[in-house]
Amino acid sequence: MLSDVVAAVPVRPFAVMNAVGLVAFALVGATKAIREEFDLFGVTVVGLATAFAGGATRDVLVGRVPLVLRSFGEISLALLGVALAVCAHIVLDAADEHPATLVADAIGLAAFTTAGAIVATNVGVSGFGVVAVATINAVGGGALADLLLGRQPFVLFDDFYASCAVLGGVAYWLAASIGGSPGPAAALCASVTVCTRLLAVSLDWHLPTAQRLGRHWRRR
Amino acid sequence: MLSDVVAAVPVRPFAVMNAVGLVAFALVGATKAIREEFDLFGVTVVGLATAFAGGATRDVLVGRVPLVLRSFGEISLALLGVALAVCAHIVLDAADEHPATLVADAIGLAAFTTAGAIVATNVGVSGFGVVAVATINAVGGGALADLLLGRQPFVLFDDFYASCAVLGGVAYWLAASIGGSPGPAAALCASVTVCTRLLAVSLDWHLPTAQRLGRHWRRR
Amino acid sequence: MLSDVVAAVPVRPFAVMNAVGLVAFALVGATKAIREEFDLFGVTVVGLATAFAGGATRDVLVGRVPLVLRSFGEISLALLGVALAVCAHIVLDAADEHPATLVADAIGLAAFTTAGAIVATNVGVSGFGVVAVATINAVGGGALADLLLGRQPFVLFDDFYASCAVLGGVAYWLAASIGGSPGPAAALCASVTVCTRLLAVSLDWHLPTAQRLGRHWRRR
Repeated sequence: MLSDVVAAVPVRPFAVMNAVGLVAFALVGATKAIREEFDLFGVTVVGLATAFAGGATRDVLVGRVPLVLRSFGEISLALLGVALAVCAHIVLDAADEHPATLVADAIGLAAFTTAGAIVATNVGVSGFGVVAVATINAVGGGALADLLLGRQPFVLFDDFYASCAVLGGVAYWLAASIGGSPGPAAALCASVTVCTRLLAVSLDWHLPTAQRLGRHWRRR
Repeated sequence: MLSDVVAAVPVRPFAVMNAVGLVAFALVGATKAIREEFDLFGVTVVGLATAFAGGATRDVLVGRVPLVLRSFGEISLALLGVALAVCAHIVLDAADEHPATLVADAIGLAAFTTAGAIVATNVGVSGFGVVAVATINAVGGGALADLLLGRQPFVLFDDFYASCAVLGGVAYWLAASIGGSPGPAAALCASVTVCTRLLAVSLDWHLPTAQRLGRHWRRR
Repeated sequence: MLSDVVAAVPVRPFAVMNAVGLVAFALVGATKAIREEFDLFGVTVVGLATAFAGGATRDVLVGRVPLVLRSFGEISLALLGVALAVCAHIVLDAADEHPATLVADAIGLAAFTTAGAIVATNVGVSGFGVVAVATINAVGGGALADLLLGRQPFVLFDDFYASCAVLGGVAYWLAASIGGSPGPAAALCASVTVCTRLLAVSLDWHLPTAQRLGRHWRRR
């Protein structure tokens, strides 16, 4: 699986993006758990779940032993994110809303979407499957973390966040379908995801609710 | 897996029941998410999760890549259910409590229970395994949807709902154990599930709680 | 998988510990569901989930059909635990806080941690993977039960509970790494888990929160 990704993309930039994402995701998850006054074990679990649950779900869906159980490096990065969250809690009010965290999180979102799209394509699923696995890889960790915290997953209502992963997954699938080689498709997927996410944060994009659509419709 | 089901049952009626169920389950899930004012992405995810999470869990439990990731038709039906829920929200108060929805949901419950029982039997699990996989296939989607909405799964306390899937699964297992061929066993399973569910809705059946059992016992 | 465990450990003591654990876990889970006034189906599901979800997750992570779907004996033990919970509800106020339950639960925690560590080691995951799978095997059921009840999993903040499984998993991995045969490693893992858990209950151990660490730091 790692070799799927390694074979498909220029390794250096992807590895950097993936590493940034692991630290950022673990930091964001651990910060949420700290706010709920979980103990250090709970904070670590929620941080690791945010960083790894998406990728582990991807691997289970395609029938493989999760990559994270077979490697040491990724864990160290996520534990670094948890440690940063605990340290930051002492000096900062909301480390997970710091601009640097938002940018790092967007980079991670792009890396995880791309990894999901590559693995899914190699397994030979449908176009919907590629987009679904890419999105689950990208936002599954954050969704599980919110469930562990006893909340509705923020990706379902809060923000233009999972939609960026969907757009990235669609871009990968389109590029791969028209016969593109995996490298450019991966670059396109990552670019679409990270750009739409940064735009969404800057311009405060939101998707409409059915209630708003209903009001629009009735007003006409 | 599709071929498991196709080989076992008269295809036409099963396909119709399965299609009705996908639309109904997606509509019910999406309607719940609309009520929580999720955005359109969240509404779609909860609708698709309701329709597919049970079957995907079944496939993961028996070690296969989920069918839904490999097909296009099923997704279209579930997206139709989501679209119906959004449209119905504008003209109806509670599309998920409409009698037509309740009947379609019961048909879906039967189709999903039957598919779960067939797949589990082909994998060679125990009698408990057949009933468990059939029930998870039937109610896993609704349970996940409720978790995503931040509630206790309604199947655990609300209604005589999952119990119909349990009865259908037991019927399939009994019929298969006494040497019945898969076709009649599937027909029996679907009939038991849909009939008990429609009776439960009409007659307002409920299972007792331990509290009620305790009161009965003490009164004697 | 059963044969993994059977090959690795002295069977008789392990089987006894595992049986005690299944009854205790099912009793604890079912008691929580009774308190929420779930119906008897919901009580049974939460009890079975507490007993089996950890092991089933372990099996899915290592790519196998869950053991529980292929056996009959384990189910009978868990159903016994559910029945005990329903009966105990009538005569006892809090069967899940009875000292006998706490000891049986600690024994189960040790049995499940050991089974997870053995299965993970046989699959050939990293040291982190061994500890993660052992911990998930031990506390995954309780965590899922809490999610089904609409709460934050107690293992993340309440108690020195999952930490015992982590320590047991680390002990197994260390013993196996220095070339120990599986039998002694399993005995060590089970002893570490059960002893730390009983000590934690007696001495009311807790892990610190980040808030407490922060106060310590600022006070200096």
